[in-house]
Amino acid sequence: MPERKRPLNIAMVGSGFIARAHSNAFHQVGHFFEVPFSLCTKVVCARDHQKLQAFAQQWEWQETALEWESVVSRKDIDVVDIAVPNALHASIALAAAKAGKIVLCEKPLALTVEEAAKMAEAVRILPNLVWFNYRRVPAIALAMQWIEEGRLGQIFHYRAYYFNQSGADPAKGQTWRYRRSEAGSGAVGDLLSHLVDTARYLNGDISELSAMTHTFAPQRDVDDAALAMARFANGSIGSFEASRFGVGRRNGNGFEIYGSKGSLAFDLEDMNRLQLFDATEPAALQATKSMLVTGPDHPYSAIFWKPGHLVGYEHTFIATLGDFLVTLARQEPFHPNFDDGLKTQKIIAAVEASAVSGVWTRV
Amino acid sequence: MPERKRPLNIAMVGSGFIARAHSNAFHQVGHFFEVPFSLCTKVVCARDHQKLQAFAQQWEWQETALEWESVVSRKDIDVVDIAVPNALHASIALAAAKAGKIVLCEKPLALTVEEAAKMAEAVRILPNLVWFNYRRVPAIALAMQWIEEGRLGQIFHYRAYYFNQSGADPAKGQTWRYRRSEAGSGAVGDLLSHLVDTARYLNGDISELSAMTHTFAPQRDVDDAALAMARFANGSIGSFEASRFGVGRRNGNGFEIYGSKGSLAFDLEDMNRLQLFDATEPAALQATKSMLVTGPDHPYSAIFWKPGHLVGYEHTFIATLGDFLVTLARQEPFHPNFDDGLKTQKIIAAVEASAVSGVWTRV
Amino acid sequence: MPERKRPLNIAMVGSGFIARAHSNAFHQVGHFFEVPFSLCTKVVCARDHQKLQAFAQQWEWQETALEWESVVSRKDIDVVDIAVPNALHASIALAAAKAGKIVLCEKPLALTVEEAAKMAEAVRILPNLVWFNYRRVPAIALAMQWIEEGRLGQIFHYRAYYFNQSGADPAKGQTWRYRRSEAGSGAVGDLLSHLVDTARYLNGDISELSAMTHTFAPQRDVDDAALAMARFANGSIGSFEASRFGVGRRNGNGFEIYGSKGSLAFDLEDMNRLQLFDATEPAALQATKSMLVTGPDHPYSAIFWKPGHLVGYEHTFIATLGDFLVTLARQEPFHPNFDDGLKTQKIIAAVEASAVSGVWTRV
Amino acid sequence: MPERKRPLNIAMVGSGFIARAHSNAFHQVGHFFEVPFSLCTKVVCARDHQKLQAFAQQWEWQETALEWESVVSRKDIDVVDIAVPNALHASIALAAAKAGKIVLCEKPLALTVEEAAKMAEAVRILPNLVWFNYRRVPAIALAMQWIEEGRLGQIFHYRAYYFNQSGADPAKGQTWRYRRSEAGSGAVGDLLSHLVDTARYLNGDISELSAMTHTFAPQRDVDDAALAMARFANGSIGSFEASRFGVGRRNGNGFEIYGSKGSLAFDLEDMNRLQLFDATEPAALQATKSMLVTGPDHPYSAIFWKPGHLVGYEHTFIATLGDFLVTLARQEPFHPNFDDGLKTQKIIAAVEASAVSGVWTRV
Repeated sequence: MPERKRPLNIAMVGSGFIARAHSNAFHQVGHFFEVPFSLCTKVVCARDHQKLQAFAQQWEWQETALEWESVVSRKDIDVVDIAVPNALHASIALAAAKAGKIVLCEKPLALTVEEAAKMAEAVRILPNLVWFNYRRVPAIALAMQWIEEGRLGQIFHYRAYYFNQSGADPAKGQTWRYRRSEAGSGAVGDLLSHLVDTARYLNGDISELSAMTHTFAPQRDVDDAALAMARFANGSIGSFEASRFGVGRRNGNGFEIYGSKGSLAFDLEDMNRLQLFDATEPAALQATKSMLVTGPDHPYSAIFWKPGHLVGYEHTFIATLGDFLVTLARQEPFHPNFDDGLKTQKIIAAVEASAVSGVWTRV
Repeated sequence: MPERKRPLNIAMVGSGFIARAHSNAFHQVGHFFEVPFSLCTKVVCARDHQKLQAFAQQWEWQETALEWESVVSRKDIDVVDIAVPNALHASIALAAAKAGKIVLCEKPLALTVEEAAKMAEAVRILPNLVWFNYRRVPAIALAMQWIEEGRLGQIFHYRAYYFNQSGADPAKGQTWRYRRSEAGSGAVGDLLSHLVDTARYLNGDISELSAMTHTFAPQRDVDDAALAMARFANGSIGSFEASRFGVGRRNGNGFEIYGSKGSLAFDLEDMNRLQLFDATEPAALQATKSMLVTGPDHPYSAIFWKPGHLVGYEHTFIATLGDFLVTLARQEPFHPNFDDGLKTQKIIAAVEASAVSGVWTRV
Repeated sequence: MPERKRPLNIAMVGSGFIARAHSNAFHQVGHFFEVPFSLCTKVVCARDHQKLQAFAQQWEWQETALEWESVVSRKDIDVVDIAVPNALHASIALAAAKAGKIVLCEKPLALTVEEAAKMAEAVRILPNLVWFNYRRVPAIALAMQWIEEGRLGQIFHYRAYYFNQSGADPAKGQTWRYRRSEAGSGAVGDLLSHLVDTARYLNGDISELSAMTHTFAPQRDVDDAALAMARFANGSIGSFEASRFGVGRRNGNGFEIYGSKGSLAFDLEDMNRLQLFDATEPAALQATKSMLVTGPDHPYSAIFWKPGHLVGYEHTFIATLGDFLVTLARQEPFHPNFDDGLKTQKIIAAVEASAVSGVWTRV
Repeated sequence: MPERKRPLNIAMVGSGFIARAHSNAFHQVGHFFEVPFSLCTKVVCARDHQKLQAFAQQWEWQETALEWESVVSRKDIDVVDIAVPNALHASIALAAAKAGKIVLCEKPLALTVEEAAKMAEAVRILPNLVWFNYRRVPAIALAMQWIEEGRLGQIFHYRAYYFNQSGADPAKGQTWRYRRSEAGSGAVGDLLSHLVDTARYLNGDISELSAMTHTFAPQRDVDDAALAMARFANGSIGSFEASRFGVGRRNGNGFEIYGSKGSLAFDLEDMNRLQLFDATEPAALQATKSMLVTGPDHPYSAIFWKPGHLVGYEHTFIATLGDFLVTLARQEPFHPNFDDGLKTQKIIAAVEASAVSGVWTRV
């Protein structure tokens, strides 16, 4: 006897690339996750009428609106999803919070630590989520499981990198992501923020860091690349590199973790695999495993297809939303939430501060 | 101004793993492909009432039916989709064809060449499709593009393999796929048929072949593995290997093609990549490229996400259905259709005949 | 106190590429292996005076001779090494054997089974070796160790391939390897013979096989490619493919072995690695290991450099010679010897016979 | 008519692992390189009599000596080769230089910049070499060729890393490499110095850097790991990481270089390959090539074996020595020489200084 599901009406602000990924997740989550909610793609808001109509039809949104302001407080709306440029996150989130909605927000949470702090405060008693979707790559979730089980022992090194070539493409250089007023920063907010969220997830807090940023493109007012060295609270040391001038890389978001009992490596361009090394085996048997993280007994493997059947980019959003709804039903805390978004914001602010001062900065 | 879409009501027979993949495609195709049809998941048919209810709820089928017989001829049904064990394909397809429906059928098309021939004849004037979904892996579609552009020159070798470990798992050995009465054959129909369809797609007709089959598991009445050597009509020679005893491989479905101007290689466990070698470059620059087939300018890359963002197993079904609907709208022929299914059936029959006779067999 | 070493004077016939590899091994073996012999590169024989002088100087041969006939029976010669085209192997080996020398011979042993049988008979009481050097790739030796330890369980599949692109290069097509009178066969003797020796080493005897050969190049009287399906005495089934038209492969000599407890894979272009899969691990931990076979505790790792420091092509000859000298000192049998060469010759003869008859052939 | 070769008598100080690699190069260089010198392994010096005797016999040194002091000035010695712990480099090199010898020295050149400067001054008019052998990995030499040909365009990022697990092995922790008095530093001198030499070779001078070092092992007085961020004179930015706690890596010495026209990547554990990306190709054809750098037309490919036949660790020493002797014959400058060693010493001194001060340091 199928259970009765609680309907959740969603209002999404945005109609760009990431809004497609969110829409897809809203439609797909119920096909894969057992959740006691029935999601309804109620209203999508964006400025460009024509694009918006096409978007709404393609992604099955029931209504459209050119202004988000009147939508986010509507009585019939349960969830507000923010999928617009960074500069708009705070105002929408604060309005949605004021109206008591469940709030989902794209990353990075805000333009500044101040904004992020206000936002985190505003949603304190509301369910909330920041779309740091990569925590739910099955291979990254498996990495977390290995770490929690102590399979890596004491962590020595955490290395993170995110290279793509978007900044070297003159066409892309004209979008909002390359303007400080709308994006807040360049590779720092766009790419490094992902690395920081994943690092916090897998390796815990950063104590202090030293960083540099660099802009290769003339007349651009955001950074194109950022590097940082860090000390983690757990005694490990870390390196971070993010660049939009990684020519040849399309989505080279990865990490390596070296511990006393083993090591792990991951790269998003090969997202169904995790590289694992178990240093507790006899020496002659030690070698890096290239594991296809599609099951059996891997994170999300019972939820999506079956062993050997790959998942893709969109499944990270579906899994994020699925886990969120599961915790929502259980009234349990969910991560990454706005507090996580705030912590990441503080770290990227420290990166920018250190890049200016040239000295080590406590986080 | 959004165009008006023609509704298509679907009746699907089956509620197993592959029926999930089909259901997913029915829901997702409109999110990615521009097609002038609006698909409705109307009725799903299966024998087990309880499983069926759960399936229908999870995958948003409006109705359920325990018997397919009365459903496939319903006036309000436009499309009949067959997602059940091989032994049932023919009777459902023939009934659906008699009722003038669009017919979609899982692979292999039938148990025998005779069945397949009847089925192909029955759908002669009806739109039809066989779910050899792997033609629409973007990397395989790109391989086809390279071949059609003559980038490989004269083809010398076509090597195909499909290894998984399903047969070595005692639990799996009890399902319908391991009984001749329901499956018709073992690795031959299950795995080798995929290889044959892809080979026909990429390298054309097979003229003659010599084959062997082998059953490792005692008391099993289907083959566990099949090997074949072949001569293609284009003068190239080929090898085929399919096994359910490829311990360590989960979905090791791949090919290598060597031609006078270059070579290609693909493996489904790394499905977002194609390996390419261009022998027309200066010798010192020649090397195998590992190409992430996510665009720009790759097959389906404008349809799914963006460069560097991977697709998964399910997208092969979405792309197959998308292409089918596009050709349907244009009243153009679609492949792989029942005629393709019949041709593959003839080749796998030749494999089985040669395995018995021990001599070369013309196809 | 260093031990006194027994001097061994070597006469080598040949001054081509493979003669370089042998010369290198004669000089290097004492630097790596503890052997109670002191090797002396005494005489090198070849037809072309000028090339021979340069060769002798470069590789530190004390004397040169234009005719091998008078050299191989010289009293001061202990070892005769045959590094010339296949058609000359038998006459030199028989003369050397008659003179009671230690005989080392390049592969394949002979042009025909008859020749090979005579040669094997002639050296019955003499130390002898066939340069099937790939048995001593450390990774292949490790594969053998795994198999002997039962780590693969019951073997299901043995897959072997050797692809290079030498045949597609018009310049190479003029050398002795492309003339039946001098080489006996094409890819069969040149490439497939290596696969057969390695298969016999790792997986034991072949019971029966079905094969095909093909010549792509017009006017060439040897095969360019050969394919075979086989049944091994241990119940496993095998496939073999060898081609000189594998455009894009330089030295693509590899195998895959699937067994009930695990699998192995190797490719000579990545010769310091072995791919291993252990199916006895818990399912969630199973994955293919890419093992750098440079130690610790790997075959030859204490002999060459240290873990992480790679060896190359030449080390396979050094290790073959080193093991030969060790067994010589201990008066133990060595493999691969002329008997092994004869067995391989019988299998490649069966391949050629089956390719003509089109039926399965017992070996 | 073979040319007459000038004899060069060598005295080597040291009998450890690296002395094996040098000895091998002395014997092998003439087999591969055309050089007008005949090298003679005359005297080897070391403290441990018994080990020394065994070493001399294995590696064919004519004489042994327990004290280097009386040997390096011997009239019959032409070349002094230094293969001992870092703390001894300066005194031996200065004595050899005073005696007018050709001086070859292991890396890093010295314990301090002061020592290195004196050494560089002392050999000003003498042929000299520092064994930064990795410049002569064929793949690294090919990388240099690509850069010199402008194939990467403007360089954006230079990333270098060297991870091994030696420091995590308690047994290794007792050797001279883990004592400041003998080694000068830990990972900095041992590993980072290699990265710096390769970076200077491929990407030119470093202008300024910020660094950190860390010691994981209690009671160890040298660093176990070092990280640095750098600005190069050519406008690119760089990262460096070296660690002896890279559990799972045996010899993970690599780099990635991203430029406006393409990118390159290399890892010593896969030393016969270079990864190359050409961003000037049409977008749909762009992909990373995994090139087997064994020819044709690759650095050293005409010198060692033939395409598809791999070289190993030892060949980097042979090629370094071969190039040195070629330039010696032509009276041309050779790199890396003591001046290069000094420049690297200055950079690693800057790394150590910055690690203490926490601020950016000009080099």
